Amino acid sequence: MSATAISIPLWADLSAVALGSLQGALFASTFRDRRIDLLGVAIVGTAAGLGGGILRDVLLGVIPRALESNWYLLVAVLASLLGMLLQRIFSRLAALITVLDALTLGVYGAIGATKALAFGLPEIPAIFVGVVAAVGGSVMRDVLMNLTIAMMHVGSLYAVAAGAGTIVLVAMVAVGTPTLAAGIVGTVVTVVIRLLAVRFGWTLPEQRALSRLPRWRRPR
Amino acid sequence: MSATAISIPLWADLSAVALGSLQGALFASTFRDRRIDLLGVAIVGTAAGLGGGILRDVLLGVIPRALESNWYLLVAVLASLLGMLLQRIFSRLAALITVLDALTLGVYGAIGATKALAFGLPEIPAIFVGVVAAVGGSVMRDVLMNLTIAMMHVGSLYAVAAGAGTIVLVAMVAVGTPTLAAGIVGTVVTVVIRLLAVRFGWTLPEQRALSRLPRWRRPR
Amino acid sequence: MSATAISIPLWADLSAVALGSLQGALFASTFRDRRIDLLGVAIVGTAAGLGGGILRDVLLGVIPRALESNWYLLVAVLASLLGMLLQRIFSRLAALITVLDALTLGVYGAIGATKALAFGLPEIPAIFVGVVAAVGGSVMRDVLMNLTIAMMHVGSLYAVAAGAGTIVLVAMVAVGTPTLAAGIVGTVVTVVIRLLAVRFGWTLPEQRALSRLPRWRRPR
Repeated sequence: MSATAISIPLWADLSAVALGSLQGALFASTFRDRRIDLLGVAIVGTAAGLGGGILRDVLLGVIPRALESNWYLLVAVLASLLGMLLQRIFSRLAALITVLDALTLGVYGAIGATKALAFGLPEIPAIFVGVVAAVGGSVMRDVLMNLTIAMMHVGSLYAVAAGAGTIVLVAMVAVGTPTLAAGIVGTVVTVVIRLLAVRFGWTLPEQRALSRLPRWRRPR
Repeated sequence: MSATAISIPLWADLSAVALGSLQGALFASTFRDRRIDLLGVAIVGTAAGLGGGILRDVLLGVIPRALESNWYLLVAVLASLLGMLLQRIFSRLAALITVLDALTLGVYGAIGATKALAFGLPEIPAIFVGVVAAVGGSVMRDVLMNLTIAMMHVGSLYAVAAGAGTIVLVAMVAVGTPTLAAGIVGTVVTVVIRLLAVRFGWTLPEQRALSRLPRWRRPR
Repeated sequence: MSATAISIPLWADLSAVALGSLQGALFASTFRDRRIDLLGVAIVGTAAGLGGGILRDVLLGVIPRALESNWYLLVAVLASLLGMLLQRIFSRLAALITVLDALTLGVYGAIGATKALAFGLPEIPAIFVGVVAAVGGSVMRDVLMNLTIAMMHVGSLYAVAAGAGTIVLVAMVAVGTPTLAAGIVGTVVTVVIRLLAVRFGWTLPEQRALSRLPRWRRPR
């Protein structure tokens, strides 16, 4: 199986970074009791926006793409500060931001998975790299904020949506679909699952042992 | 000094990954109050099983071995889910799991140290890489669970056992022992120290300043 | 723009590592309630002393310099143990240690930024790598100790000082200043800002939304 990485226009990549950083900063801003300063918000926001892509490239053994141009860090820091300063405005746009965030999740997963395939990785590791690229920013945000990782908790299928989209993408590439088409379908799958999960409150079951499940009893 | 990395059969490597993931999932399952969902257990288990090897290869600047085959992630995720579902059964096998875990600790330390030597690293960094490979999974587990790192606390010589085994291994290679023989001896040293520490409750002293130690007093 | 990395003498590099590890161990020793053992202090100290340089080299895609010689790990571990054993003595030298630490912050930032420039990275990523190299050790310390990252809190301009110094350095290199001269000026800028911040208690404002700022009211 071979594949070429999806190369998306710089403005689209930067838009995704900006959105990720904006959300990271909005999130950090809600923890007023921790006395996080301006710099702290910028750090958390930047990590949220760039973390996924940096982890992806470290796993692939290359210099992170975010370090090969001045734009990424500049956009991430500015978006973080903007998110902090205008948090009241953005908190009214929650619905729009959820949609754009789902889109970012899908696009990052698709870029990560196709980049991994282009590096010659097998299918399952490519899915893994895609998911890490999609959710790595939010994991890094939570580690820096000293919170348990949000997506591990009973929530709204954040990582599941990313995983489903990249699985579809990798399967389509495996049967010969052009990378770009597979990437678009994969992104759509992620966006749809994520938005339906938010809308209808879908969650995964909490972890529990099999022996705790209800059992059939023989009628006496 | 030159050395070749120990190449162990894939089934043995995957068995170690499965055991690490199983234990990571069992561990995560004990924190019911945190409402970790199915995915969270799979993430923690996978990190516990693959984290050490991934950190080792990131330090060595190569694509992690776990990403070069479909098997590693598949085994890690399945072992995690199995660990969660069958936690009652596995909790009765605690003694067996402790033994297998000590073996995994030793084998991972030996693979990590010999791989580092094969990459041309000097002795002390090779020991460091071996220890990181051996304990990295449990550190990653604790960071993701937002716990202080278990092995830093007064405990049962987990990292010490790994360190002692890799020190013996590297010393033996330095005086000309074939890598495989040194690896086996190093693994045995780790396993023995770890099991004796568990059995007899050996711990390191708590950190304290010299000035807190009891002093000799002159008889008056 | 081209640049050569500043190559500083090994003894200077090791002195910086020793100081970082010493401080990391002193810091870890203050948390008696966590029952951290000898090994835990050594781990935290080593991470504090070597973390910045390791993160820098991982981002640049090369084997960490600290792993290419036996000295770095040896010095880091010994300094950690020394810091723990002699914490009462060192706590009386707080002023001296603050000065040396500011120097270390500046030197690490300068080494990191010039190394990034030598690898062909653009200006802003080079600043980023310099700051990561300067503060990475303290971030790693806090993650391992399960604390929120100290420098994100209202504090004494730790990362700001590192950022200002590397910005000056990169700007000077961009207009043609020799790397070594730019590195010295950048280091001095970092040291001066850091020491003035400690002396006069300078802090960044806490994060807050624009709409929370006082507004002008029309006189009625």
